Amino acid sequence: MAESWLPTLITPDPQSGYDLAVKLSRVAVKMTQPDAAMRDKLRADYAEDADALIAASQVVAVHFQTVAAANGYWRSKG
Amino acid sequence: MAESWLPTLITPDPQSGYDLAVKLSRVAVKMTQPDAAMRDKLRADYAEDADALIAASQVVAVHFQTVAAANGYWRSKG
Amino acid sequence: MAESWLPTLITPDPQSGYDLAVKLSRVAVKMTQPDAAMRDKLRADYAEDADALIAASQVVAVHFQTVAAANGYWRSKG
Amino acid sequence: MAESWLPTLITPDPQSGYDLAVKLSRVAVKMTQPDAAMRDKLRADYAEDADALIAASQVVAVHFQTVAAANGYWRSKG
Amino acid sequence: MAESWLPTLITPDPQSGYDLAVKLSRVAVKMTQPDAAMRDKLRADYAEDADALIAASQVVAVHFQTVAAANGYWRSKG
Amino acid sequence: MAESWLPTLITPDPQSGYDLAVKLSRVAVKMTQPDAAMRDKLRADYAEDADALIAASQVVAVHFQTVAAANGYWRSKG
Repeated sequence: MAESWLPTLITPDPQSGYDLAVKLSRVAVKMTQPDAAMRDKLRADYAEDADALIAASQVVAVHFQTVAAANGYWRSKG
Repeated sequence: MAESWLPTLITPDPQSGYDLAVKLSRVAVKMTQPDAAMRDKLRADYAEDADALIAASQVVAVHFQTVAAANGYWRSKG
Repeated sequence: MAESWLPTLITPDPQSGYDLAVKLSRVAVKMTQPDAAMRDKLRADYAEDADALIAASQVVAVHFQTVAAANGYWRSKG
Repeated sequence: MAESWLPTLITPDPQSGYDLAVKLSRVAVKMTQPDAAMRDKLRADYAEDADALIAASQVVAVHFQTVAAANGYWRSKG
Repeated sequence: MAESWLPTLITPDPQSGYDLAVKLSRVAVKMTQPDAAMRDKLRADYAEDADALIAASQVVAVHFQTVAAANGYWRSKG
Repeated sequence: MAESWLPTLITPDPQSGYDLAVKLSRVAVKMTQPDAAMRDKLRADYAEDADALIAASQVVAVHFQTVAAANGYWRSKG
């Protein structure tokens, strides 16, 4: 993970902020399990597991909270 | 998910903010499991599983925290 | 859930704020499992399950954090 | 739970704030399982279950965050 | 737990703040399971259980958030 | 853990802040399970367990929230 993948938390709007939150939640997984084929296999499994899907959604929620705060909640775009 | 589904975090009142929090918690699931029929099947299962219902409620709580902060807690509407 | 159930996050004191947090945590469950009889059955089950009770308490804690912030922590009532 | 049990979030110091956080985490359990004898039985069980003890500690952590913020982190007492 | 164990949340630097967060996460466990021998036994078990280790790390993370905020993130030490 | 490992929460950019969040999430594990060989064994196991990977990602998310706040969300770098 030497390349630059997170230059800023600032995004143009809430939706791209949400996409960034999804990305942030996946990078931690990538750092622990660097094998892409294994990650694909695991994702296929948990995509049919309600508990895992909800847990993954929770991680996105926490990152979205961070990104939203960083962007002042995009209030001037409301 | 190319279409615009999250133009703003601003809502007219707490209740519509809560609805937005529910939406935010579901989108992450949708991104991991894009098959609507499979999601319906999983939802039917976890709707009878107290643990999963509580976990889903937790995700909504985190998103509602974000939406409420974005809206200044709708204080002027109190 | 078309009726108005959440006009404001402002409450007169911490205790009624806590009650509102409990309500907020239950509404998400209601949205996923709209059948009241099924919810009563699930609640009876998890009321005897320490893990589920703790998880439900966690959801209340996150909502209480939101409600407390909305009310400026009721500081002038201290 | 009609009696007044939470008049304020303000406490004289961090330690009594921590005690209040523990109380806040238990009240939600009490609201779902009002039977004290059943709660005692469940507590005896989970007191020997590391996962449940950790989960309960997590609920206290969230409430302590709220109480600490309410008290301005007791900074003037530092 | 009558003795004073938490006089302040202020610490000289982030690392001692982290140590305090670890302490805060253990006290809640101690309050539910006051028997030190039983806690040692449980800790030995969960020290070999990845899920429990991760869950314990999560509790520390929440408390560290509180301690860091209390200390203004030790910014002047940066 | 007597050596200095956390002199500051300030990082030059979001990506190094994320790396710090990963480090913060691992230290708590290290404090409970000081045996490096055992930790390597546990990590190998949970690297193939979707639930554990998601839970670990959640801990990183909470620490990243703290580090991001400490750095004012690196706004001037946006």
